[in-house]
Amino acid sequence: MVSSARGIELSAGPRRVGMAVVGLGGAVATTAVAGLELLRVGASDTSGLPLAGVEVDGVPVAEATGMADYADLVVGGWDLDGSDLRKAADQHGVLDHRQLEQAGPYLSSVTPWAAAGDADFCRNVTGGNVVLAETRRAQVDAVRADLRRFREEERLDGLVLVNLASTERWPDPAAPALQTVEAFEAGLDADDRSITPSMVYAYAAIAEGVGYVNFTPSLAADVPALIAFAESRGVPVAGKDGKTGQTMMKTVLAPAFRSRSLTVEGWYSTNILGNRDGLALEDPDSLESKLQTKGSVLDSILGYPVEDHVVRIDYYRPRGDQKEAWDAIDLVGFLGQRMQVKVDFQCRDSILAAPLAIELARLTDLAQQRGQAGVQTQFGWFFKAPMTPDGSTPEHALHRQERVLLDWVAGAPAGR
Amino acid sequence: MVSSARGIELSAGPRRVGMAVVGLGGAVATTAVAGLELLRVGASDTSGLPLAGVEVDGVPVAEATGMADYADLVVGGWDLDGSDLRKAADQHGVLDHRQLEQAGPYLSSVTPWAAAGDADFCRNVTGGNVVLAETRRAQVDAVRADLRRFREEERLDGLVLVNLASTERWPDPAAPALQTVEAFEAGLDADDRSITPSMVYAYAAIAEGVGYVNFTPSLAADVPALIAFAESRGVPVAGKDGKTGQTMMKTVLAPAFRSRSLTVEGWYSTNILGNRDGLALEDPDSLESKLQTKGSVLDSILGYPVEDHVVRIDYYRPRGDQKEAWDAIDLVGFLGQRMQVKVDFQCRDSILAAPLAIELARLTDLAQQRGQAGVQTQFGWFFKAPMTPDGSTPEHALHRQERVLLDWVAGAPAGR
Amino acid sequence: MVSSARGIELSAGPRRVGMAVVGLGGAVATTAVAGLELLRVGASDTSGLPLAGVEVDGVPVAEATGMADYADLVVGGWDLDGSDLRKAADQHGVLDHRQLEQAGPYLSSVTPWAAAGDADFCRNVTGGNVVLAETRRAQVDAVRADLRRFREEERLDGLVLVNLASTERWPDPAAPALQTVEAFEAGLDADDRSITPSMVYAYAAIAEGVGYVNFTPSLAADVPALIAFAESRGVPVAGKDGKTGQTMMKTVLAPAFRSRSLTVEGWYSTNILGNRDGLALEDPDSLESKLQTKGSVLDSILGYPVEDHVVRIDYYRPRGDQKEAWDAIDLVGFLGQRMQVKVDFQCRDSILAAPLAIELARLTDLAQQRGQAGVQTQFGWFFKAPMTPDGSTPEHALHRQERVLLDWVAGAPAGR
Amino acid sequence: MVSSARGIELSAGPRRVGMAVVGLGGAVATTAVAGLELLRVGASDTSGLPLAGVEVDGVPVAEATGMADYADLVVGGWDLDGSDLRKAADQHGVLDHRQLEQAGPYLSSVTPWAAAGDADFCRNVTGGNVVLAETRRAQVDAVRADLRRFREEERLDGLVLVNLASTERWPDPAAPALQTVEAFEAGLDADDRSITPSMVYAYAAIAEGVGYVNFTPSLAADVPALIAFAESRGVPVAGKDGKTGQTMMKTVLAPAFRSRSLTVEGWYSTNILGNRDGLALEDPDSLESKLQTKGSVLDSILGYPVEDHVVRIDYYRPRGDQKEAWDAIDLVGFLGQRMQVKVDFQCRDSILAAPLAIELARLTDLAQQRGQAGVQTQFGWFFKAPMTPDGSTPEHALHRQERVLLDWVAGAPAGR
Repeated sequence: MVSSARGIELSAGPRRVGMAVVGLGGAVATTAVAGLELLRVGASDTSGLPLAGVEVDGVPVAEATGMADYADLVVGGWDLDGSDLRKAADQHGVLDHRQLEQAGPYLSSVTPWAAAGDADFCRNVTGGNVVLAETRRAQVDAVRADLRRFREEERLDGLVLVNLASTERWPDPAAPALQTVEAFEAGLDADDRSITPSMVYAYAAIAEGVGYVNFTPSLAADVPALIAFAESRGVPVAGKDGKTGQTMMKTVLAPAFRSRSLTVEGWYSTNILGNRDGLALEDPDSLESKLQTKGSVLDSILGYPVEDHVVRIDYYRPRGDQKEAWDAIDLVGFLGQRMQVKVDFQCRDSILAAPLAIELARLTDLAQQRGQAGVQTQFGWFFKAPMTPDGSTPEHALHRQERVLLDWVAGAPAGR
Repeated sequence: MVSSARGIELSAGPRRVGMAVVGLGGAVATTAVAGLELLRVGASDTSGLPLAGVEVDGVPVAEATGMADYADLVVGGWDLDGSDLRKAADQHGVLDHRQLEQAGPYLSSVTPWAAAGDADFCRNVTGGNVVLAETRRAQVDAVRADLRRFREEERLDGLVLVNLASTERWPDPAAPALQTVEAFEAGLDADDRSITPSMVYAYAAIAEGVGYVNFTPSLAADVPALIAFAESRGVPVAGKDGKTGQTMMKTVLAPAFRSRSLTVEGWYSTNILGNRDGLALEDPDSLESKLQTKGSVLDSILGYPVEDHVVRIDYYRPRGDQKEAWDAIDLVGFLGQRMQVKVDFQCRDSILAAPLAIELARLTDLAQQRGQAGVQTQFGWFFKAPMTPDGSTPEHALHRQERVLLDWVAGAPAGR
Repeated sequence: MVSSARGIELSAGPRRVGMAVVGLGGAVATTAVAGLELLRVGASDTSGLPLAGVEVDGVPVAEATGMADYADLVVGGWDLDGSDLRKAADQHGVLDHRQLEQAGPYLSSVTPWAAAGDADFCRNVTGGNVVLAETRRAQVDAVRADLRRFREEERLDGLVLVNLASTERWPDPAAPALQTVEAFEAGLDADDRSITPSMVYAYAAIAEGVGYVNFTPSLAADVPALIAFAESRGVPVAGKDGKTGQTMMKTVLAPAFRSRSLTVEGWYSTNILGNRDGLALEDPDSLESKLQTKGSVLDSILGYPVEDHVVRIDYYRPRGDQKEAWDAIDLVGFLGQRMQVKVDFQCRDSILAAPLAIELARLTDLAQQRGQAGVQTQFGWFFKAPMTPDGSTPEHALHRQERVLLDWVAGAPAGR
Repeated sequence: MVSSARGIELSAGPRRVGMAVVGLGGAVATTAVAGLELLRVGASDTSGLPLAGVEVDGVPVAEATGMADYADLVVGGWDLDGSDLRKAADQHGVLDHRQLEQAGPYLSSVTPWAAAGDADFCRNVTGGNVVLAETRRAQVDAVRADLRRFREEERLDGLVLVNLASTERWPDPAAPALQTVEAFEAGLDADDRSITPSMVYAYAAIAEGVGYVNFTPSLAADVPALIAFAESRGVPVAGKDGKTGQTMMKTVLAPAFRSRSLTVEGWYSTNILGNRDGLALEDPDSLESKLQTKGSVLDSILGYPVEDHVVRIDYYRPRGDQKEAWDAIDLVGFLGQRMQVKVDFQCRDSILAAPLAIELARLTDLAQQRGQAGVQTQFGWFFKAPMTPDGSTPEHALHRQERVLLDWVAGAPAGR
């Protein structure tokens, strides 16, 4: 990222910020924890961390803005699987041998808190580390208690809850319980099942004044009730669905095709991945959530509907976390003549996602320092389906999102 | 392209602008001529023409700025092959059957003027349609006479010379004759061979007050002598090397990799093409010119040198004008872990290039109307190696070039 | 194909053989009809016809074996869409402009006979050209009448029925009606719905002593009742599912991986196609039939089960009949180390299939001349799921199938 | 590989066979040594070793034929770089962390003998471990002494010299010194520079009665003088150029295209690799040798010349030994219509080559046991440019080569 800037008063002293992660044992979260540890012990550098090299008026961004340093992030969180993160990292196979050895002792010391899961919403991922709270309201109380304890025990200056759990199926977004704060709270008491586990966490975070980030395709805070709740409590919320591989590329290529007036006649995208996320997406309902956030980007960038936009995700184990995304794009150019582009992105899901989750924690804490409440549209650069306060169409083109983000970091007012 | 705007006084009446093309019988030029004719007779639409849908404050760009309409462009030009364009189009195989039939009668009526070629600079492309002018000075005079005749016979309001010839080898850019206007003119008289055919055309255009566009990798106007000459005569010049396929994609993807802090460890690019341009590049000297303009873009966008940046171009006949560009990109991300992207662009050289050449003619005429002399840096969006007045590093990222271009079109002052 | 041979008595005089095609208006059949016409008028050569260059002991195969010449094939058949083949060819977009013009007059003269369809078995393909025969028995009688009429009117020496219809869903192969000839005939009378339309045609052909080829994934003759019926009536049957694109490549690559002891850890295959076949496969039941015939080849060639063998087919319109098959193959080699192969086959479905269908008609007629009844295992080279008389695992490796086929053509006894 | 068989008398007792390797420190040889050690200690299995699972009449091949077991191979050899193999393995980066640890102690104990190199023939690979023998004859004597010492010290029952060195440039194959044994020996004495280092080794091996395998594109034993010498001394020789990646795939795909009568209009192949072999090929003379062995396969398999067959090899470091081969194939099918296949083989050079080198040592020793002298054409399956006794065109199709090889292993007489 390139710096861009305006003068800003500097914050004093290191700022200690907590990341409370839903899905702490997953590949993305484990990679984030390991990565921060490797950074701390000097076994890795900041490569892949988008804000690491950004400067504001020639001053490193953390110093210039008061954003927390990577070294001052403290990660804890929940997972249905209670294994320590060393075991989790072994399973995920993201770290190489040397990294596992170097981060291993620290990872062994991190054990997820009991989670508020619900097999009904995410069928292919289960585990025994479930909180003993059967109703939605009781789950909220348990999560809030975890957040308070985390803040106190770690003496945190800031705290952000980041949802990195596997995708859950969407409830009906028009369900009455999701429309107003009052209805939502009544729903919690009535154990209304249109309130999903991700919403339980989002509500708990907001209630505790904790910034909230949804890195998954789950609906989570993207309902009127929780947006209003965040605004009323002065809490920033951001989401949804981290834009890492294929969709990221799409939001890079589509603006170029538009720039050159090449009409996109069709865009076929298939993804193969073999990690826990892939398994979760074997459940058609979870897949449906994912496809929804992936599908919307093209038409809004191009300015016309692409009738043959097909997106596939298939669980395919041989390469584990090493996801592959193949795109076949059909273009029509001058004189109606056709051309094709194929893109094969052999990426690593967690290696792309973990640094984004880390930056989002730092940025959301900064937003909270700046007193910004509600949906943080300036973080759209991170997401496949950026939330907007009113459900309007967000900006999807990566380069325009970058400009908005960097301007905001440098001190420009948020908003589109 | 997206419109962007500031108020501008509208020009009145249709403006008739000539495009005098070097290499008129080539695939790009023939496609441009055929395309304009198909537009005129309503057999094709403006798809693929980047400025066709641009508006300034809600007003179509031509109307808002006084830019010539597609219908008001008149194309003529030189070629070493004196065949009429119907024959040329048959050979190139770019147009489909129906388009050949519809544009055929008009194409038959267009015959290239005798060209000022020099087998020494472009060995694999020859022909018998050569002007009887052996010295550089005599060639200049012949070209100037052609331009005057074209302007008068067609009663043109504006005239732009566009170089679409096959790539010629570079002379030593430090040759004395290329450093000052005086030295250059002395060189013309002395028939100095560091003055190449493309420079003869460029000089002749500037001397006649005709805007100049270099769409090829040849050095042409990109020498101090001709830049100074253009400035002194108040003539706009633009170049060099149209950015159509692989390099265009590179300047789209590289900014995204930088945005995400993905380090480019290596980028292997190979091109296979079977048209006359591909044949010209079988000559190692011409290839050298091409690779030079292709090589520079990555490092400047990324901000660090990519040590393994390999670019290959191979002549391969089976698909003629249907070029294929394959890229293998090696990325390093978070925790030093590696990922790969492959891009296979099965494009059509002339279909991508012809509309850019057309837009450049319109834009260069607009620049001349606006009284802008010398290097038009705001046209960098069109070129692999955008000229700068002082040889400084140009902007290469497509999205930033687009913004500069559209701002200028809408009336913002040029310059970086 | 390479010739291989043993002496054979030559047949005398041209042999006129009919191809009665189910799905005559489809892309494959239309292309076959057009191709034979273009051959007859000398507007195309035998390129792509696998047996065209085969010799037996130095004598061209037709002459050596008594196989019908391409010029002596007569094509007729059924289709739910009653349009003439010129209209069909226009829609399919397989022929180029010149070919459409040259074959057009003949194609206009060919109109499909009314078909015995059943929307229940192939939901996305419908049409109004349906025979007025509501029960299975009545349909059989109508088809038999068509065959008799065709044979007489065209004074045919031989006749083969080739199923090129869109894929229909499979009935339960264990259904009682499909187990014995008696049960099947009772089922026809009782209008048993486990008897599918493709079985109606197969039964009718056998009953008429007409050779039967199933080029589709439909179950058709591949049930005990019809195999026994063919044997008892002395009729050759062959099938099923023409092996043209991705599966053909699979049966070429997999034997090589086995030869080199490269273990296939996973094989991900996706297909995108936009013709009528693709549309038919949008129906999940038809898709199921297709995936069944595609899935079996790998394990039997490799000698071990490939756990991650995923096959996808997606309807994607931009390229019509120009199908694309993308394979991602994961290999494990020496020291357990991993390698990958990607294959992108941009093929033309009908261009690959039509010549195979033509050769099958000639070969099946030859089998009938040779008095071979029942399943023709030596034709396995043509099929994704070669039928075997007893349902045992067939040979799938293309090169071994080729040897079997050529040996049989040259006169070796059939059988494995 | 599949077994095939005829009864054979079994040899008794383990047979200890030496592999004397030219280029012992290279990636292929180091991987072979490490692999055999990992097999011995049970840290790896026989995956990737083509003959491991072959049986003759139900009996494992080694037992059935008297071929040496993997465990009974002893590897030694020469290298210009005198580092021990542990250091070499570290550099090559082929083994994973655990394999390096397990094979490390053994690898440390293996140090290459001083080599008879000649910078003139292979310019980009140099080292200090050169034998002090300046003339060709003195080099021969040194190599012979090494072979005798190796045989005695290791009490070997058989010995095979395998050339795994980097590619050297070709001398003129028509040079007089290479035509007869007498001329060759005179050339050794006269230090004739048309005798290359690889020929020195080949001659020394044959003179010592040691079987010879040339796994590289160097000319080596493929000259009349050395073939005659091998025949006269009763020594088997085999070569040349191991067929591992792209060419292997070519000899799999081309027969299939021929089988289906798909005409190959063009075949563009590019290779990128970053290991020591790749560096050696930066020398245009060495590259020339390589391209020569790669170029010949297509035309002979297809039966017609492919005019646009382009093969590129580029040195590209990011992936070291992990070579990538990309093929773009243009096919013409029925009705002259075009199709394309792209193959991207992301392979590991040494992982593919090492097991082939190991099998060749075992097989050449078996040939020697069987008393077969001269060129072993039945080993063509292993090579890009299989030697033939008389320089006639060899069989290139992988599946036919496999049949020949397996028949020979099972006891059939050699020869084509």
